[in-house]
Amino acid sequence: MTAYTATVTVRLKRGVLDPEAETTQQALERLGFELDDLRSADRFEVDLDADDDAAAEARAAEMAERLLANPTIHDYEVEVVEA
Amino acid sequence: MTAYTATVTVRLKRGVLDPEAETTQQALERLGFELDDLRSADRFEVDLDADDDAAAEARAAEMAERLLANPTIHDYEVEVVEA
Repeated sequence: MTAYTATVTVRLKRGVLDPEAETTQQALERLGFELDDLRSADRFEVDLDADDDAAAEARAAEMAERLLANPTIHDYEVEVVEA
Repeated sequence: MTAYTATVTVRLKRGVLDPEAETTQQALERLGFELDDLRSADRFEVDLDADDDAAAEARAAEMAERLLANPTIHDYEVEVVEA
């Protein structure tokens, strides 16, 4: 077993309203920053033991499907590195 | 001016309690997943125009300092790519 860190990034699908990001963008603009767009996402860093990269990635993807992401509104991506 | 996407990742400093991450970890464990640790972070993807990479990165870092991160409890990192 090897120790891995899997990073799961969960973001809203294109077209889903994101009031938090909109508010953050407006606040930055009020502070004088110029920006074209802002999107927010959640990032989970999961430390786990697995036999190899592929097993770690599969497990993290299953965590995303079952709990971390809501497939109706979210896309997710998984990146795995050896810890 | 070139279009860039700056990704600002904001995470709690080591030692700051993260009840959301703890609850998420417990929920995953109740679903039968084995994991050693889970940390959560916020990720902001900011589209902006700047003269070069360095200018884009400096602007995103200033956004983090002034609004996106709370320096008392957060660390942040900035990555910039051409959009």
